[in-house]
Amino acid sequence: MSTETRTLDAQALWQKDKDHFIHPFTDYSLFHEEGCDLITDSDGIYVEDVHGNRFIDGIAGLWCVNVGHGRAEIGQVMAEQATRMAYFSTFNNLSNAPATELAAKLAELAPAHLNHVFYSCGGSAANDATIRLVHYYFNRLGKPEKKRILSRKNAYHGTTYLAASLTGIESNNWDFDTLDHLVTHLSEANLYRRPEGMSEAAYCDHLVTELEDTIDEIGADNIAAFIAEPVMGAGGVLMPPQGYHARMQAVCRANEILYIADEVVTGFGRLGHFFASEAVFDTQPDIINCAKGLSSGYAPLGATLISDELFEVLGTPQRKGGVLSTGFTYSGHPVSCAAALKNIEIIERERICDNVREVGPYLEQKLKTLSHHATVGDVRGSHFMLAIENVADKATKKPLPVEARVGDRVAAEAQKRGLIIRPVGHLNILSPPLIWDREVVDRVVAILDEAFAATTVSLKTDGFL
Amino acid sequence: MSTETRTLDAQALWQKDKDHFIHPFTDYSLFHEEGCDLITDSDGIYVEDVHGNRFIDGIAGLWCVNVGHGRAEIGQVMAEQATRMAYFSTFNNLSNAPATELAAKLAELAPAHLNHVFYSCGGSAANDATIRLVHYYFNRLGKPEKKRILSRKNAYHGTTYLAASLTGIESNNWDFDTLDHLVTHLSEANLYRRPEGMSEAAYCDHLVTELEDTIDEIGADNIAAFIAEPVMGAGGVLMPPQGYHARMQAVCRANEILYIADEVVTGFGRLGHFFASEAVFDTQPDIINCAKGLSSGYAPLGATLISDELFEVLGTPQRKGGVLSTGFTYSGHPVSCAAALKNIEIIERERICDNVREVGPYLEQKLKTLSHHATVGDVRGSHFMLAIENVADKATKKPLPVEARVGDRVAAEAQKRGLIIRPVGHLNILSPPLIWDREVVDRVVAILDEAFAATTVSLKTDGFL
Repeated sequence: MSTETRTLDAQALWQKDKDHFIHPFTDYSLFHEEGCDLITDSDGIYVEDVHGNRFIDGIAGLWCVNVGHGRAEIGQVMAEQATRMAYFSTFNNLSNAPATELAAKLAELAPAHLNHVFYSCGGSAANDATIRLVHYYFNRLGKPEKKRILSRKNAYHGTTYLAASLTGIESNNWDFDTLDHLVTHLSEANLYRRPEGMSEAAYCDHLVTELEDTIDEIGADNIAAFIAEPVMGAGGVLMPPQGYHARMQAVCRANEILYIADEVVTGFGRLGHFFASEAVFDTQPDIINCAKGLSSGYAPLGATLISDELFEVLGTPQRKGGVLSTGFTYSGHPVSCAAALKNIEIIERERICDNVREVGPYLEQKLKTLSHHATVGDVRGSHFMLAIENVADKATKKPLPVEARVGDRVAAEAQKRGLIIRPVGHLNILSPPLIWDREVVDRVVAILDEAFAATTVSLKTDGFL
Repeated sequence: MSTETRTLDAQALWQKDKDHFIHPFTDYSLFHEEGCDLITDSDGIYVEDVHGNRFIDGIAGLWCVNVGHGRAEIGQVMAEQATRMAYFSTFNNLSNAPATELAAKLAELAPAHLNHVFYSCGGSAANDATIRLVHYYFNRLGKPEKKRILSRKNAYHGTTYLAASLTGIESNNWDFDTLDHLVTHLSEANLYRRPEGMSEAAYCDHLVTELEDTIDEIGADNIAAFIAEPVMGAGGVLMPPQGYHARMQAVCRANEILYIADEVVTGFGRLGHFFASEAVFDTQPDIINCAKGLSSGYAPLGATLISDELFEVLGTPQRKGGVLSTGFTYSGHPVSCAAALKNIEIIERERICDNVREVGPYLEQKLKTLSHHATVGDVRGSHFMLAIENVADKATKKPLPVEARVGDRVAAEAQKRGLIIRPVGHLNILSPPLIWDREVVDRVVAILDEAFAATTVSLKTDGFL
């Protein structure tokens, strides 16, 4: 660590940040008063703020840092690649070794038919590029009417204009424009809030029927693809009912509708496998998108894995002299790809997927012990991707009023006790680095136990309970 | 350099690349046969392929590597930041030191009123986010009809769905869909191919009148913004007529149309200044987008610089509890921002903008000595951003037939002689690292002299001349 970067002037940085940095997804009515919290240091499962306060990172940065913080060997390969050959175009026939090696490695890790990699710098751009390529594909097949994308309410697919249109979280698009003619949002799969008294199997039937009815209504000839997160992430860490994805895919197949799995969150070990689509949910998507865990966030990187069948069309010029005229300056960035290769090597070498499969169920089970707290209506998710839904009344599942800011309260109480978790409305989300062991789980759940108790007290004091 | 990465198996990499890497902007009828050229090493003004062939890099990777290749000190700060704190979310009030420092630095370098920075990972995402924010801005002002974006034919603004729609290069969107209802393309400013006999001043009047007429036709109430590259890049390195941008901006101002400068290529020294908008073209854009030279391509990074006036609106919640619900996981990535800070430090320390202002005119003047070659119809551009337009007939400016692939021929002849330049249709583009001196310019122009001579011979042999 250089002294230059070690010595930070907390007050000066706070002021600069407030004056100049437009933070995403920020409530400026608070930010203009309070300014930022600077995260400046990190190590393994911990991060530290500018004042030297140390926290267990319960969100892996933002579903990202799967191998944990402070991996000097990733930094080292990034420096080597940056010094050896930091950047050159990958347009036309130009390439670089890390991008090539990574493409081959991803083809090896992905379901068998996904052998072709289109790079971007993150999940939003990956999803945006995917839809562009899908439209191009159907144009090339002479089916220019196949354009509509089926997404789901409460889905999160990013924030380019197109990705934000795929996203189904209503508040995400308050006062922003979306491309409503291109996207139809089906119901999300929400076991906790499914119709009263409906069995899981009946609920699955209900959702599949909705898909079939929607196809009947819009016409399969007008629908290009269905896009879904295997486990819906920011929309509430929603596990689908048993068999859901495989059945949705079967309906799509029967109607020549492509099935796109957005594995930006679930990819690279979060559910105990490099990809969840086939290993966990028994689907063979036509396209899988990944980002985040792909590089464990050490460098910006996204990848779209494309099937042999699709590439057959994409890899044929649309006319003489025509090129596949899409992609980014930083598609296949050498330094980002080198970071991803080292990241994958670490996941394999340290058997991190095994750790997730071993510790994940323990984490789920321990989190469920929090159910006795007054506000804990549901504890859900799988392995290292979990959420707690807070409610005012467990029997009716009635949420607390928005003004109670229950997610924020719980997160603040946890942070006071040395743990960062993510508040999303009335939820609290955990998406830890994949290196937690049982001992860390015990410490985390002990902190959460106190945090929920304290939250109950403060909600009562303020008249919300 | 580690031995691990030094020893590359050229044949194995070539095969993997062909099997798995979907290259952007690639003609697959050639690629499936020929596969890739791997660029594996670099140093200053040079890059090297996997076979050890060394080339002068005449395109800075892709208008990117402004400070030149192999800067170990940039690699070093990237490793330090990656090890110290590689990634944490910048959503809500969370921040990190490099993103904050860089935002403040950009505000210092940009025109006085541009004080607020919205981060992305490259030019496409920056332009996409910009239009989203502009639409949001007018929605917030209660002017939801102000939505149309004025762009220009042959403009290049990237390849997200929205960015590709802004782009006005026709072949870019062959068989891809675009959002035609959102974008109107004005004429590009093309001095070389302006109407016969029209003076530069009259041509400028003509273009400004077209803008005024378009506003009359569509209605200022329906137009949100005008977006333009100060010098049109991929569309042909087109310098505008004297006074063009300032006059276009004045018309926009009078009609409450925002003026967006896409400085992805021109920013960070290519025209001899950190930003060209004000220093070169006397405009004060409402928004400037940058990427590429911002980090010299060492790490993916884009930034949107936003005026105080706009931020006044963007930085006020749209409703109680509302957040500015856009941005990316990797907005303000610590490692990318650390690379950019070091890159800017190098530009300042080595007075690289001074070098561009000193050597640039010499490069322009020397390139013009190539005008005697049979195909060289126009030599144009400014400082380190230049193009040569090849024609069949200088008097009529008639282009060569597409099958002659003249740009490719010149580029191949140059590459044989140790220089990489970029072919774009019948053009050849030079956008070198900003560290070329007069001696390098002399070597480059000597190579180009031979390359154009050899191209003339081969075109005659093949019956194109």
